[in-house]
Amino acid sequence: MELDQAAKKKVLRDFTYGLYAVTAAHDGERGVFTANWLSQASFEPPLVMLSVENDSSTLPLIRASGRFAICPLDESQKALAGALGRPKARAGDKYATLDLAVVDTESGVPALADSLGYVVCDVQSESPAGDSVIFIAEVVEARSFSDAPPLEMRQAGFRHAG
Amino acid sequence: MELDQAAKKKVLRDFTYGLYAVTAAHDGERGVFTANWLSQASFEPPLVMLSVENDSSTLPLIRASGRFAICPLDESQKALAGALGRPKARAGDKYATLDLAVVDTESGVPALADSLGYVVCDVQSESPAGDSVIFIAEVVEARSFSDAPPLEMRQAGFRHAG
Repeated sequence: MELDQAAKKKVLRDFTYGLYAVTAAHDGERGVFTANWLSQASFEPPLVMLSVENDSSTLPLIRASGRFAICPLDESQKALAGALGRPKARAGDKYATLDLAVVDTESGVPALADSLGYVVCDVQSESPAGDSVIFIAEVVEARSFSDAPPLEMRQAGFRHAG
Repeated sequence: MELDQAAKKKVLRDFTYGLYAVTAAHDGERGVFTANWLSQASFEPPLVMLSVENDSSTLPLIRASGRFAICPLDESQKALAGALGRPKARAGDKYATLDLAVVDTESGVPALADSLGYVVCDVQSESPAGDSVIFIAEVVEARSFSDAPPLEMRQAGFRHAG
């Protein structure tokens, strides 16, 4: 059985995603990136699953602090989603270069003030997954900022799948 | 720190999902259910992550066979997504009661002919996740049937999150 690469790409691109800013911090260092590979995973307790690329500069911060925040972006924030998707090696400290307004959560994770809100998630476990790692994490803090419609990856014209 | 339940529900409902039929079979028994908690998780190798409720009648079939198929539904299939979401205890064998047209994949998983296509995924690992379990699985077979727009949970008016 040989995998049909074109069909694999097409069907995986038929999956539907939102666009989110994922943030983490540790020991004075802050990270933020654009994510789409995430989902709720349990109602009780409230768990999420998040895939993070092995070469993400935010990954060590998630591991060291044991937590991250997910900030769903609103439909007007396509440009921000693009900017947050640039690797730190090229973009520098995106909090500074993009002049990001930050909300200090009780948990100490810097969430983005300009987003629909945030959930802070405490990592329960981590699993290797090819070029990425999957975190299973519990929602421990949440705040909603806006009732605006969320930014959807397909509508934004992004294509991080396949 | 106390979790704000209303904010938790609101922000988790700001997550964006598609609607999919997930299928599995073992030893002559077939299962199918509507899923939204899934995502790609790696490009290389192509992996997906899927959350399945502990009380799903398809869960034992996934475990016994070590594989499942994900069939993204198209935007016209809201009624089917609703019907496939009913538990087997009440709906019976949905392949029979809904007269589902099935494609026999090379892997032996029964994929839905009336869908955008399918990816067959071989389970690599399973992690407990509260009321659900998370499978990490590799895409081993794929076929595309249609270029129609995918069914999105928000547009369908479903709300399986929070």
